[in-house]
Amino acid sequence: MAALSGPRIRHSVAFALNHTEGSAEEATFLDALRALAAIPGVEAFEILRETSPKNGYRFGISMEFAGPDAYAAYNEHPDHVRFVETRWLPEVADFLEIDYEAVE
Amino acid sequence: MAALSGPRIRHSVAFALNHTEGSAEEATFLDALRALAAIPGVEAFEILRETSPKNGYRFGISMEFAGPDAYAAYNEHPDHVRFVETRWLPEVADFLEIDYEAVE
Repeated sequence: MAALSGPRIRHSVAFALNHTEGSAEEATFLDALRALAAIPGVEAFEILRETSPKNGYRFGISMEFAGPDAYAAYNEHPDHVRFVETRWLPEVADFLEIDYEAVE
Repeated sequence: MAALSGPRIRHSVAFALNHTEGSAEEATFLDALRALAAIPGVEAFEILRETSPKNGYRFGISMEFAGPDAYAAYNEHPDHVRFVETRWLPEVADFLEIDYEAVE
């Protein structure tokens, strides 16, 4: 994994769904989530399984941006806005956003 | 950044320190934290600055292991145990462990 440097941002969100683990609803949510990778500026896109017992989240999404402009463009992109309104808010039970940048 | 696959684990901890931002104590803590990179099995080691306003953490540490055996060896390594007892527990105000693995 390439280390972060300069203005590069790693944006991640740990989350848990309202759906039963292993359900069809869970699978279709993850499929819809994968479509965010196509938004311009999104790099190193991953959907991950959260496996630490020390928190209540069950999945994670991680992506990188070259800098704050690319990140802002993603946040404001119609596909992202629509996904948040129609899929994320109704189907996600709990989540935590964590964004990382290089130290110095 | 190489995507996770198979048994590979990305272990991360978001945290905030008891020390004032920019202080000498903060700097020496981060220096001590960097030494964990030398523990056998630790890969892709990063110390990061947390920049989302949506949580109260201020730093992150991220590393990867080839699988659960390497992760367990790290957790049990004397250098890690000593660091937790003498530096982490006294100097970290709040933290959250998040571990990721590949989906399927």
